[in-house]
Amino acid sequence: MRTFFSALPLAALAAPSLAAADKPVTPNDVIDAAPASDWRRIAPGDLMVMDLAPGAKGKPRRVVIQLMPAPFSQGWIGNIRKLVAAHWFDGIAVVRVQDNYVVQWGDPDGETPGKAKTLPAGLAVVPERSYQVTLSRDPNDWPETDRRWPKIAGHIHALQQVMKRFDQASPAERSPDAYARAAKWALGWPVATNGASYWPVHCYGMVGVGRNLSPDTGTGAELYTVIGQAPRQLDRNIALVGRIVTGMEYLSSLPRGTGALGFYETPEERTPIVSVRMGSDVADLPAYEYLSTESASFAAYIDKRANRKDSFYIQPAGGVDVCNAPVPIRMVKP
Amino acid sequence: MRTFFSALPLAALAAPSLAAADKPVTPNDVIDAAPASDWRRIAPGDLMVMDLAPGAKGKPRRVVIQLMPAPFSQGWIGNIRKLVAAHWFDGIAVVRVQDNYVVQWGDPDGETPGKAKTLPAGLAVVPERSYQVTLSRDPNDWPETDRRWPKIAGHIHALQQVMKRFDQASPAERSPDAYARAAKWALGWPVATNGASYWPVHCYGMVGVGRNLSPDTGTGAELYTVIGQAPRQLDRNIALVGRIVTGMEYLSSLPRGTGALGFYETPEERTPIVSVRMGSDVADLPAYEYLSTESASFAAYIDKRANRKDSFYIQPAGGVDVCNAPVPIRMVKP
Repeated sequence: MRTFFSALPLAALAAPSLAAADKPVTPNDVIDAAPASDWRRIAPGDLMVMDLAPGAKGKPRRVVIQLMPAPFSQGWIGNIRKLVAAHWFDGIAVVRVQDNYVVQWGDPDGETPGKAKTLPAGLAVVPERSYQVTLSRDPNDWPETDRRWPKIAGHIHALQQVMKRFDQASPAERSPDAYARAAKWALGWPVATNGASYWPVHCYGMVGVGRNLSPDTGTGAELYTVIGQAPRQLDRNIALVGRIVTGMEYLSSLPRGTGALGFYETPEERTPIVSVRMGSDVADLPAYEYLSTESASFAAYIDKRANRKDSFYIQPAGGVDVCNAPVPIRMVKP
Repeated sequence: MRTFFSALPLAALAAPSLAAADKPVTPNDVIDAAPASDWRRIAPGDLMVMDLAPGAKGKPRRVVIQLMPAPFSQGWIGNIRKLVAAHWFDGIAVVRVQDNYVVQWGDPDGETPGKAKTLPAGLAVVPERSYQVTLSRDPNDWPETDRRWPKIAGHIHALQQVMKRFDQASPAERSPDAYARAAKWALGWPVATNGASYWPVHCYGMVGVGRNLSPDTGTGAELYTVIGQAPRQLDRNIALVGRIVTGMEYLSSLPRGTGALGFYETPEERTPIVSVRMGSDVADLPAYEYLSTESASFAAYIDKRANRKDSFYIQPAGGVDVCNAPVPIRMVKP
């Protein structure tokens, strides 16, 4: 009997590596074949481990977030490190889930004078200009706050690496983008440019800093992650600080809020956050690695994402959106 | 006290119309101000009403799907109408939820000889070429099956309307696209073209036909919807037949499957589908309208999506992805 209605109709899309010598190479084949030298270990000190209250049947719900490296968003990330060190996030909650948009967590009483949780001392007020890192090789063009960063030389070097990536000419990476002159992957992250400046972009699973109206830019005490189509209109308007490495499904599958903007209407609907710790302070944490976006394996991966030729595909796309090719991340036992 | 951590930090993104005369116009302002003549009623006979088993606390979970109009995918849509008429979908289940990809429903025993649910007689086998509708104004260039469609003249007229939309020159609609020469909205749907042919695109909430490996194209008995970043690589490779009009949150918030490709590993995890009926056979169904993609209001909406200038935004994007500006749909009491 011909099975018109296979239980695995999309099998070829994400199948594990099964490619024989005569079969077309899939993106997963490329990832599986990448040499160890093309993978980069994520420092545990750049991981934020967020334990939600257990789910149905007491199932643990751990979300691991990778913070972004220099030159991006280091002002807010410094604040977030202080908030984690002060255990400030412990006891807050997921307060908003808006379908095809964001999951947001913070202090449910943050707007209520007298009830709002006190922030630790010494948080930076980051200027709007820091939403993007300017192209200039002269740090005098950078905002004053940024110029005070201790590792300024390292930041300039990192920016130069980003610029170098945009000079590279991998065909699939030159796919047109509706929001920028160019968008590709650099230092392990999705990045865009208008030619004058560079910025990280709002893809699925990216983590950003909630804020009020401009010129407020947020402290980092209220965070969100994207759970739908990339809201690229937020690029350069809200600071991105990281991405979900594992546990995304515990956030993306939460019930949608029924209040305005997807806020929960009752406290009972909120998901409590039990604790947030840096990965370096969590004993049993596995190690995580990402595929270097500067590696030959990554270039091959992007090429295969743009040009699927295995038997499931009739028409290769010929291009790929920067948010439709997540940087591969794998868990490795420490 | 300065509220760095507002409970409504993204308020301006999706706020209802609050614009005073001196405030910048938002996309929602445009939708709210659109005259009745710019809205199109969706015929109840083009709506598919899918009732899932009740959720927690017995909450009803109704999903309403709009089927696509000619000239797209009418072969599969004819099959789906036959399946609904035969009550074939009643008693099947959501079998797969893969994060940032798809929710899929079908016969859980579809692959098991002897157990698979018998399909109604008379379903069409739709050829691969029907994944796209060719540009040619000469129906002799269309696949033989398509040429047998009863309303061939109407299909040609519809294609001509699509072509006409692509000749229009609204600046925001000319945003670059990684997957096609051009992508915009026509006849109420997101559509792309390579210059020679036109096809509907895989945006969040679009509904498509599960299939096995080529040349199988699926019958329509197994369907999926997109719950993440638009998987545009599926365009022209799998048939799209509709979109979720309401109730998307009941699908997108389902627990992710832990088996390969997000399939559930036990029958208990599946969400049963109680019944699927055409809207014309459901007594208490509200009416739904979409904003005509050929209207001046829609052009203004797209322009505002591409160029947000209200106080939340510091940097207008200057462009918009075809999947990041859903066609506005509203419920109206019948």
